[in-house]
Amino acid sequence: MSFSVRVLGSSSALPTVKRMTSAQAVLYNGTPYLIDCGEGTQIRMREYSLSFGRLRNIFISHIHGDHIFGLFGLLSTFSMLGRRTEMNIYCPEKLEQICNSLFASLEHNLGFKVNYIYLNPNGINHIHSDKNLDVFSFPLVHTKPTWGFLFRETEKERNIRKNFIEEYNLSIAQIVKLKRGGDVELDDGSVLKSDDATILPPVPKSFVYCSDTLPLKRLGDFAENVDLLYHEATFMDKDAELAKLTCHTTTIQAAELAKGISAKRLVLGHFSTRYPASELMAEARTFFPDAIEARDGLEIEI
Amino acid sequence: MSFSVRVLGSSSALPTVKRMTSAQAVLYNGTPYLIDCGEGTQIRMREYSLSFGRLRNIFISHIHGDHIFGLFGLLSTFSMLGRRTEMNIYCPEKLEQICNSLFASLEHNLGFKVNYIYLNPNGINHIHSDKNLDVFSFPLVHTKPTWGFLFRETEKERNIRKNFIEEYNLSIAQIVKLKRGGDVELDDGSVLKSDDATILPPVPKSFVYCSDTLPLKRLGDFAENVDLLYHEATFMDKDAELAKLTCHTTTIQAAELAKGISAKRLVLGHFSTRYPASELMAEARTFFPDAIEARDGLEIEI
Repeated sequence: MSFSVRVLGSSSALPTVKRMTSAQAVLYNGTPYLIDCGEGTQIRMREYSLSFGRLRNIFISHIHGDHIFGLFGLLSTFSMLGRRTEMNIYCPEKLEQICNSLFASLEHNLGFKVNYIYLNPNGINHIHSDKNLDVFSFPLVHTKPTWGFLFRETEKERNIRKNFIEEYNLSIAQIVKLKRGGDVELDDGSVLKSDDATILPPVPKSFVYCSDTLPLKRLGDFAENVDLLYHEATFMDKDAELAKLTCHTTTIQAAELAKGISAKRLVLGHFSTRYPASELMAEARTFFPDAIEARDGLEIEI
Repeated sequence: MSFSVRVLGSSSALPTVKRMTSAQAVLYNGTPYLIDCGEGTQIRMREYSLSFGRLRNIFISHIHGDHIFGLFGLLSTFSMLGRRTEMNIYCPEKLEQICNSLFASLEHNLGFKVNYIYLNPNGINHIHSDKNLDVFSFPLVHTKPTWGFLFRETEKERNIRKNFIEEYNLSIAQIVKLKRGGDVELDDGSVLKSDDATILPPVPKSFVYCSDTLPLKRLGDFAENVDLLYHEATFMDKDAELAKLTCHTTTIQAAELAKGISAKRLVLGHFSTRYPASELMAEARTFFPDAIEARDGLEIEI
């Protein structure tokens, strides 16, 4: 099992030569799940050989240009490559009208269906599920309706201890029952306990994405002990007033928040171009010593 | 005087890691004039240190995504950098509605005025003039209304021969008259001829941009002897039927056209990703031996 995040764009509103605007790919056994889609995302996807064909789910946090301007080119490219597979886009309602209006103006029929699934402005919601991952959305606090996302591995079944199969001559049905946690009665009337015959699967790992937002006080309600937290850190602490005014987070606020919810690891990004990233990171590390600097191309195992 | 073209994107519809979609900057003494604006243009502009502030004129050939998807991010960036200077966009009429509709959906007031100047579908038209350049548009033949552009240095005044100023004790008014080609009567009643007192300025140089299009039969009517011709060469000659069907040009057609109008130099681009660029260029060079391969970042003196 491999579960990672690849940073595709780590700048805030203004892209630079080295940092494009917001985009990340969650990768589960090579299947990408795209979060946000700043300008140039399709180029970064090519650069890091992310599969276009296996991308079936895109998650858009909010309708600001630096989080969506790469979407038009990405969908166009898929269309020109002859895609027929449906695409799910979990997004603010307005995105559907924006995309439909643009492609209608271009007289461009994409040739594949796009399902726009609107995000719920209230509470944490289970929005997506497949064999790899469960995905939840939750509202953030920004100048526009904005959402964060929680990606959690699906619960895996217990693993049967191989030697028990032969020793107890287990049938397929018995194995399935044991793997699902049920005990099994053997031919001699004795009971084989699931706890004895199986090994517990690894605890599902999780990743939380928070951008753009003021620090979310109740993040710990559902993200306590998260394996990896991505949080925006647009501003240095000296500009905390500006951060508040523009509904963004400072380095120290992000680091304190991560510490407060006992996040196992923290990656920071969405850096304002007014500071060197090294200074932002140095400040964050005074509170969260191992904080990771998001850089375009960086892949982090979860 | 420096007059050059910087290629910012040289791929056709699909960008690759090395080639972004269509964009070029004509540079006159460092002032950029942008032609087309594929996704990532603002990043390439930063990469090659093209001035954002001095960019006041953008020329859009047609409304296909690979020629306009970088425009939204570019205008947004200018807005966030606090631009107040007006921007002229010479473009198909529809672009104004596309941009206005998108920025309205984003509730993004750019903060500077954009003048959309619609291109005329008939004939060659003088659309722009400043101290550096005269720009003309002309219709191409593509699947959508599409235009090419001719950039020509403004006619410069004659240069006065410095030694004549002292020798004939010339006044400012007399110098101005001589530089403009007029003869001057001196105090002793004799006539000083402009042809004697001045040196002719260099012949104005010109650049023609043709993408996307079928080969234009009458290009020579206004582009004969052009100093530099950029022409699309999307397809290899074996795919001439496909080129015709999609209203594009093959390598050989482009090279023959350039030869036919006695273009001094030829640069080819808008390459389909289905061929290696080296093969496209090798084929073109059988007819135009010095044809230049457009590559992202390449700057060509005109």
